[in-house]
Amino acid sequence: MENFGLCTDLYELTMAQSYLEHGKTGNAVFSLFVRKLPENRNFLVSCGLETLLEKIESFRFGDEELRYLKSLGKFSDSFLDYLREYEFRGNIYAIPEGRVVFQNEPIVQVEGPLPDVQILETLVINVIHLQTVIATKAVRSYLVSRGRSLVDFGFRRAHGLEAGIYAARASYITGFAGTSNLEAGRRFGIPVFGTVAHSYIMVFDREEEAFSAFAKSFPQNAVFLLDTYDTIEAAKKTVELAKKGIRAVGVRLDSGDIKSLSREVRRILDEAGLKDVRIIVSGGVDEYKIDEWLSQGCPIDAFGVGTKFITSADAPYLDMAYKLVEYDGKPKFKTSPGKRTFPFKRQVFRFYRDRIMDHDEVVPYREEAGGERLVREIVREGRLTEALPSLEEIRERLMEDLERLPQKLKSLKKAEYEVIIK
Amino acid sequence: MENFGLCTDLYELTMAQSYLEHGKTGNAVFSLFVRKLPENRNFLVSCGLETLLEKIESFRFGDEELRYLKSLGKFSDSFLDYLREYEFRGNIYAIPEGRVVFQNEPIVQVEGPLPDVQILETLVINVIHLQTVIATKAVRSYLVSRGRSLVDFGFRRAHGLEAGIYAARASYITGFAGTSNLEAGRRFGIPVFGTVAHSYIMVFDREEEAFSAFAKSFPQNAVFLLDTYDTIEAAKKTVELAKKGIRAVGVRLDSGDIKSLSREVRRILDEAGLKDVRIIVSGGVDEYKIDEWLSQGCPIDAFGVGTKFITSADAPYLDMAYKLVEYDGKPKFKTSPGKRTFPFKRQVFRFYRDRIMDHDEVVPYREEAGGERLVREIVREGRLTEALPSLEEIRERLMEDLERLPQKLKSLKKAEYEVIIK
Repeated sequence: MENFGLCTDLYELTMAQSYLEHGKTGNAVFSLFVRKLPENRNFLVSCGLETLLEKIESFRFGDEELRYLKSLGKFSDSFLDYLREYEFRGNIYAIPEGRVVFQNEPIVQVEGPLPDVQILETLVINVIHLQTVIATKAVRSYLVSRGRSLVDFGFRRAHGLEAGIYAARASYITGFAGTSNLEAGRRFGIPVFGTVAHSYIMVFDREEEAFSAFAKSFPQNAVFLLDTYDTIEAAKKTVELAKKGIRAVGVRLDSGDIKSLSREVRRILDEAGLKDVRIIVSGGVDEYKIDEWLSQGCPIDAFGVGTKFITSADAPYLDMAYKLVEYDGKPKFKTSPGKRTFPFKRQVFRFYRDRIMDHDEVVPYREEAGGERLVREIVREGRLTEALPSLEEIRERLMEDLERLPQKLKSLKKAEYEVIIK
Repeated sequence: MENFGLCTDLYELTMAQSYLEHGKTGNAVFSLFVRKLPENRNFLVSCGLETLLEKIESFRFGDEELRYLKSLGKFSDSFLDYLREYEFRGNIYAIPEGRVVFQNEPIVQVEGPLPDVQILETLVINVIHLQTVIATKAVRSYLVSRGRSLVDFGFRRAHGLEAGIYAARASYITGFAGTSNLEAGRRFGIPVFGTVAHSYIMVFDREEEAFSAFAKSFPQNAVFLLDTYDTIEAAKKTVELAKKGIRAVGVRLDSGDIKSLSREVRRILDEAGLKDVRIIVSGGVDEYKIDEWLSQGCPIDAFGVGTKFITSADAPYLDMAYKLVEYDGKPKFKTSPGKRTFPFKRQVFRFYRDRIMDHDEVVPYREEAGGERLVREIVREGRLTEALPSLEEIRERLMEDLERLPQKLKSLKKAEYEVIIK
């Protein structure tokens, strides 16, 4: 796809046509926020802004898109002309990527003529939602990982290739060491890691033959996968091969009772003097497992985190909305039960106590409340106001926020943070 | 992306290089299957094959991809040459799209020289997994919808734009009437539908002004969104406007107590003679809600099915694997606890009793078991053996399967189907 203009819902365009017909082209502000955190989340990690800005630049309508829209028989020629000329020239206010954020905080606010900002709704939610869901999930593994390495192994079960690629990005900013995903490695400069699959072991007649063949191909990086047939026997073969000078840098356990296997494998390796051979665990790994294993002292050095993380299986979506909050200078809000919104473009002020986050206040944009301002003007009249941070900088910013995060919010147990809306 | 070669995990390429170094280039068969169905699923709907074949055609390595791989310092020049020439020329056996399938049935089997089929692993799982997850979720809404229309409203909270586009495709084959997603409409010819958002209502000073403005813009298609302020009041305004000749074709309820609101709104509309105005319900809709509301006789004509469907929230992933089952004519399987695999390329035979599915047998490919053969040879030496079915044909095929599906499997309650592996 060259033009992303059709990455929208039909009603965005019918509304826009109707706005134009009725002269509703005044200045509007839409706010992207999460109404309520999922039960299993104590905070969110803002992520996806750079991707969104790229996609907004490509949110255009070319001949092919216009031909399709015309074929629907709903749109006037003058509206199709409007779309042909469409290019976002409004303002975007956002909380930068890699910040800890909470319910009802405006992660992205888009300002401009009403039709121009209405039709971005689907794109804005879709792009920010995905990476925020994943970063918010991934950071939970980081917070319980006690210095162990985490690697994204989830690409195959992400919801599409695009989701896998952006999930690698989102997890990297939360402290993951890297990913197995080569496209993400190329695109974002994220370190890539890999071991071997069971198929590799199975094509050799004997397991030890497979181990030594792989070590011969990659003498600096060989990880032996132990659980194809019998994990303990495979650990013993690892020791025998080491005696012949065929060394693994690590072994991987992908199934079975990890608690006892990791200890037994460690013992076998240590007794043979292979203390530097790392134990990598994969297969159904998530923050709950990591926390359980490490709190019981299992000797695991690294985790391949896969399916449950990359689908955010225990909270696969956020209650994220993009709502009109201001039109033509007037406050806008709805009063639907459970879906009330708050009017006006807003700033978020964060207050600290002893360098730890204490509470946030969400106030109309021009008001002053003291504290740290989280929302920045990122785009002014269609142009970036400043260079975007690198992925490393985003990662460092999140690490700073995590240092200032109250201890109770770092736990896998539910805890609340105070957000005052004024 | 022009070339999809990097849509793979690092270890696929390190294994492939090592295979080539050790002469492991014999004929291999990998099988894609689901080990175990999620608790909330009684069957799967095969989906995504056409997309997979497109992506496999684009699974190539150009200058940019090769430059990146070289920069990793892991790959030999001869292996990079192998990748430069890579083009899939093997065989693909698959259960066509739109079939009901079960655990341990080979949905896709890929055959060819070992390195050639190994490196497709991530792509094959990713593409088939997404659409099978979504079709398997979507069909559950269809099965409880009792003839009501279902429309995919989920694009904004899909895991990425690609996931939203393919989810529209996957849900359409399961009997959805269409989607709000314009890109899916253009790409796949799926009917598109839409109403209006709360923002539209809010930019007008009075709700009835918004309704009549929209009806003026789209006199044939106006749906009034009732729940911005007060649903019942808005239903009364709908009646008042109708008296002035300003007619809605439908009204949408997006929040509140749908059970009582749908009845009350229906009564208000009917009493004013507006029996043909349809009631459309959205907001948190899934198969459980649809079944609950319809079993209680709520007068709902159509559902906008969104977030919970498009993320398959109650089962966001399948335990889907791509495993080596045959190499150089020899059976291959692993014995890892809970992850045992079955050797050989296989055929699935389906047996019926009184035209209802009775059980399936999964047998080595050349054996004969009677019954209906589900697996077909789709690609022979890199080329399609027959034209692929249209989306309409896939949809019809699924409708036939649903007619033959045992009643107990159509329920939202857990039920089992017998799959015999020989």
